[in-house]
Formats: sequence, structure tokens, C-alpha cells
Amino acid sequence: MKIYFAGSIRGGRQDAALYRAIITLLAEYGEVLTEHVGSEGLMPSGEESLPDEAIFGRDMAWLTKADVVIAEVSTPSHGVGYEIAQAEALGKPVLCLHRPGTGRQLSAMLAGNPALRCENYENVEELKPIVERFLSTAR
Amino acid sequence: MKIYFAGSIRGGRQDAALYRAIITLLAEYGEVLTEHVGSEGLMPSGEESLPDEAIFGRDMAWLTKADVVIAEVSTPSHGVGYEIAQAEALGKPVLCLHRPGTGRQLSAMLAGNPALRCENYENVEELKPIVERFLSTAR
Repeated sequence: MKIYFAGSIRGGRQDAALYRAIITLLAEYGEVLTEHVGSEGLMPSGEESLPDEAIFGRDMAWLTKADVVIAEVSTPSHGVGYEIAQAEALGKPVLCLHRPGTGRQLSAMLAGNPALRCENYENVEELKPIVERFLSTAR
Repeated sequence: MKIYFAGSIRGGRQDAALYRAIITLLAEYGEVLTEHVGSEGLMPSGEESLPDEAIFGRDMAWLTKADVVIAEVSTPSHGVGYEIAQAEALGKPVLCLHRPGTGRQLSAMLAGNPALRCENYENVEELKPIVERFLSTAR
């Protein structure tokens, strides 16, 4: 099982520690292709050693070979929204994880989209059953 | 010429007045299908009178019938990122307008994507030649 985890990078890194905890959880179920999304050293400026064209090409290649896409969507991000739509176009099962406690409402393009599964949670401890339910139907 | 203008709604409304000015400019060149994106009354909570499924269905119908998509991408937004990827999948010409002066770097999924045209600007006064260049090649 190859898992593409999507989280905000240039949209803001306030949830980076949470992304790391989610990636650790997801690694129990398969190979997380995008481990760098949780990296402490990854700043909002992004991966400065790689040109944008190389990041785009690498991430689209990972997305194409992923079996499922799991996105943390509490921090608005163009990249995450873009990846979700591409995953949908590629026919990948997509799980969007949203924390209503942040005070933000999820975009209608995600929350109102019948092709996606959107789930609310507040703490990483709640995610295990949500992820297991998703993966059991996504296989 | 039908123009789909995309700007942040639930991602944050700090640029709503700018969106209005861009929509006024775009209306010189065609019909802007998404005029509500510039509305002063539209809060980050979105269009409360419409369920998310109805917003999604309406916006995807507009995107499908649009000739071009023009997105203001200075405020991170899942919805705008999603719409850009869907427009690309539908073969629509896409122009992304970014203000580096906000201090934000544009997502690599947009800036590094060879299928999109991304242009920097700071003031709405600079947009006329950018929009005209884009529309002249998009026809």
C-alpha cells in the first residue's frame, strides 16, 4: 500500500508536528511517499534545494503511483487542493482530514464533493479508526 | 468569452476588495461567471444559504462551460487549488496571478506546473496587459 500524504507547505507550517504524527500513524499501514511533508526543517519557503519544476514533477510521479491519498486540510493550501483534484482525476481514493476546532470551514469544493471522503477530527488519537475505515474500503 | 474567476472564500477574505477590482477589469473582456467571489457580503463561512453539495455542483458546471480560468493565488485556498487542477484536466487555459509582496511563495504545484501560466503583480493597475496577453493566446 503506497500512501500519498498531503499537507500544507507554503500555505503555512503551523501543523508540521501534527503532519509528522499522522505520517508515523500512516507508516503502520503502508509506505508514505511524501515523508518530507512532516519534516521539522521544511520551512514555508519550501524545499529550497529543488526548483519548483522538479518538485512538481516528483510529486505528480508520486501521486500517480500512490494507491490512496490522505490530506490534512485544516490549513488552506493551493498545493493540497491541487493534489486532491489530480488524485480524483486519476481515480485514487481520497480521504480529507479536517479539524473544525481551528475555526475554519472546509472549502465547499472538498466538503461538497461526492468523490471525496471528508472526516472531522481534533486529535491524532482519533485518527486510527478513521484511517482504518478508509483503507478497508479503498483496497 | 466566458471567464471563471477563482479567489479565496473560506481560505480567507482579506483580498475581497482586490477580487472585486479584478472582476470589474475582467468584465471588459467577457462574462465573469463567478462574480460572487468579489462580493463584500461574502464571509469566510461562505454562502450560507446554499449547501456545500450545491455550491460544488454549480461551480463545477461553471468551470466546465468557461473558456478560460483566471485565479488570484496570493491567499492560500484549497478551493482555488482544486479548481485550477480541474480546469487543467478539462483543458482550459489557466492564468494564476500572484503578489510576491504578500511575502508568500506560490505553491510549487502551481509555480512549477508547465500547464499553467503564473504571473507576478502587485497592483490591479498592472493587470490589464497581463490579462490581455493571456487572453490573446488563450483564444
